[in-house]
Amino acid sequence: LEGYNVDWTKKYKGNSRLVLKPNSTKKVSQILKYCNENLLPVVPQGGNTGLVGGAIPIKDEIILSLSNMNKILEFDTHQSVISCEAGCVLDALNQHLLPYKYEIPLDLGSRGSCQIGGNIATNAGGIRFIKFGPFKSYVLGMEVVLANGEILDLRSKIRKDNTGLDIKQSFIGSEGILGIITQANILVSPLDKFKTVILMQCESFGKVLEISRECKSTPGRHLSALEFFDEHCYKLVQKNLPGVVRPFEFSPELKNFYVLIELCGQEPLDGIIEELYEKLSEKNLTLNMIMSENESQFHSLWRLREGIAEACGRGGIVLKYDVSLGIEKFEDIVQSVRKRHGDYGYSVGYGHIGDSNIHINSICKKPEYKKKMEELLEPYIFEYLASVNGSISAEHGIGSMKPKYLHFSKNNLAIHYMHQLKKVFDPNGILNPNKVLISQ
Amino acid sequence: LEGYNVDWTKKYKGNSRLVLKPNSTKKVSQILKYCNENLLPVVPQGGNTGLVGGAIPIKDEIILSLSNMNKILEFDTHQSVISCEAGCVLDALNQHLLPYKYEIPLDLGSRGSCQIGGNIATNAGGIRFIKFGPFKSYVLGMEVVLANGEILDLRSKIRKDNTGLDIKQSFIGSEGILGIITQANILVSPLDKFKTVILMQCESFGKVLEISRECKSTPGRHLSALEFFDEHCYKLVQKNLPGVVRPFEFSPELKNFYVLIELCGQEPLDGIIEELYEKLSEKNLTLNMIMSENESQFHSLWRLREGIAEACGRGGIVLKYDVSLGIEKFEDIVQSVRKRHGDYGYSVGYGHIGDSNIHINSICKKPEYKKKMEELLEPYIFEYLASVNGSISAEHGIGSMKPKYLHFSKNNLAIHYMHQLKKVFDPNGILNPNKVLISQ
Repeated sequence: LEGYNVDWTKKYKGNSRLVLKPNSTKKVSQILKYCNENLLPVVPQGGNTGLVGGAIPIKDEIILSLSNMNKILEFDTHQSVISCEAGCVLDALNQHLLPYKYEIPLDLGSRGSCQIGGNIATNAGGIRFIKFGPFKSYVLGMEVVLANGEILDLRSKIRKDNTGLDIKQSFIGSEGILGIITQANILVSPLDKFKTVILMQCESFGKVLEISRECKSTPGRHLSALEFFDEHCYKLVQKNLPGVVRPFEFSPELKNFYVLIELCGQEPLDGIIEELYEKLSEKNLTLNMIMSENESQFHSLWRLREGIAEACGRGGIVLKYDVSLGIEKFEDIVQSVRKRHGDYGYSVGYGHIGDSNIHINSICKKPEYKKKMEELLEPYIFEYLASVNGSISAEHGIGSMKPKYLHFSKNNLAIHYMHQLKKVFDPNGILNPNKVLISQ
Repeated sequence: LEGYNVDWTKKYKGNSRLVLKPNSTKKVSQILKYCNENLLPVVPQGGNTGLVGGAIPIKDEIILSLSNMNKILEFDTHQSVISCEAGCVLDALNQHLLPYKYEIPLDLGSRGSCQIGGNIATNAGGIRFIKFGPFKSYVLGMEVVLANGEILDLRSKIRKDNTGLDIKQSFIGSEGILGIITQANILVSPLDKFKTVILMQCESFGKVLEISRECKSTPGRHLSALEFFDEHCYKLVQKNLPGVVRPFEFSPELKNFYVLIELCGQEPLDGIIEELYEKLSEKNLTLNMIMSENESQFHSLWRLREGIAEACGRGGIVLKYDVSLGIEKFEDIVQSVRKRHGDYGYSVGYGHIGDSNIHINSICKKPEYKKKMEELLEPYIFEYLASVNGSISAEHGIGSMKPKYLHFSKNNLAIHYMHQLKKVFDPNGILNPNKVLISQ
């Protein structure tokens, strides 16, 4: 049962000796009813691609895997809505939609194994958030099994439905502590016919901010990704990932920055690209630029950004901080972190600047520095974020790793009402105990 | 106090003798604390532009108007987020954003008087829903005063924040029964540089469906409105609204249909329009088409769609049904309604086909037929909608007019949990009593 007791981070290990894999909503309901009556804690698990220990047991909880609920039920071409069971893998849904020229309006690195129920339960963000906006706006309906086994049928397929309180929203991003999502109806998006990537090198973070502003306004709704990374990232990728392209040389002092944008549309993008180039060069914002001319270059350039996490992992033990704050403070937080850990570590900053979301990866210079690094950075980083009204978890969630830090992002009154909601839907506290909220 | 006791529909009249207009969150908090301790019911009121009696008293409740809380607090250009008090009028916010070339991602007919707090509290939809998606995805933060006077500070300005249950969502679309929204932080959208309207005439509803599908896929993200109306609407507008343009003649049997689309972009739209024209004529979908060539024509064509409600009102007493259902059933529901009321009335169908949202306006042929018409159509229409998993209120809400029909769109278990949420945030039931949910 090893694979069910650890998640992608391999940071924590549960001790569950029972994994149940029901293949119907009715069976999920029967299992939960039994567990609720006998006060047996249950951990719902999807593709197990989480990064905060949210879907693995802390002790010996029963694991309820949704993997056997992976049927695609229907694609409604009039409403552009796909209906499916919670255990469907994101990529499988996209494969199903391809002949219709539609896609799920969510994309993330784990697309090949993450499950749609988990995507909803964790309010997944991902790399095209700036294009689609939050996934919750596409979840038109769902079926949820509550802790006591009740099947809550909210399977609407319509976009506009102002009939009473929107109960469905409570479960989106609830990380499995309020109920188990068993089915979902998702509004899908038309596939774009044209897309291209542009990678820019610039000499200061101030220029990154100016480039960001220009990339948001000039291509407008054609902008489908707006990412950045510092030169430390670029160097690590070049060093640790064999075969990546090297479009630009890096400076010895590692003081440059990189902005990667993706543009998309139903028409050729030449006009937009030309206008953007003109604006950027008018203001002298970039040192170098390169654009993908074909599918292979498109993926090669993306690899420079998407490979950063892997390149860090090959450099040593990594402490990962997935946080949100005002983008004008991105440089400062990374520099503060570097100053804080000094020679114990090596930190890089990258991520979704279009969504005010930065990933700070701090690599321990020696394995034995890990504890010291954690002591130095936690709660240091969270205190920093609290002081600037940032978020201690932009998209990864709270899981079992961050409940004790939740108060850095949410005040006591908000946390009080989270507990009240928990009591409404799971009064016995059997669902994913001690995840998100510390049991009272 | 007349103006505070009736809303835009003038259908119901309350009997409140006290209107309070606090100018700060602290005062809202003090008022609610006092009312909660003394069990005095309170009706929150914004611009009072509602259509379901949600913001007016039923009896003699105290009215709490947000009109004096109309300060724009800040526009954060890095994050593209505007912070404001709840009483700000939608148009005033857009005026403030104009120099920055941004707009609020919500547009509706009442833009000149509706307030942003009310827009959020009612989860307003509107005519550019297909462009922006649900407004809730742009509400990044809010401040809410709860029934007991507690000030719940959820004023985040960041887009990605997966730190615990998203309490904020509970208040969006809650129609003032869970708390009073006093401030909001809203992500705004870049203004489009180019926009145009195309009006198409076609000879059957089947063609409307095909045109809709083509308009969703070919212009993709350039589509900013996708509306339809039947020929009965067109005739009424021509007859009852002086000075409207008449681009096409209508057929004697009134069997044609009209599709109006708006396209937008940061670049000239000629290529997209040409491609769309080709596809539509290849399939022989339209009888006639006309495109706006300038601002004045843009508004004239829109007037044909936006004037329908007014044209109906000039035709007699109107029963309005704002509903959602599968678009393939739009023609059938209107015909069923016509058959049902026979010679007592005259019904037209129009609305946001891009969002599966149709407005059915049923005009009573004589004022004295009103009661008979209501008996014939209610709950007839709601039963129809329940049988096809539709919504009895697409965007107008439940208010005081539809709580008794809520079960046609939501099952008993869902309604049960709505009551549970109400108990969590307003245990004494002082906020907007008997709106949305019938007090237990």
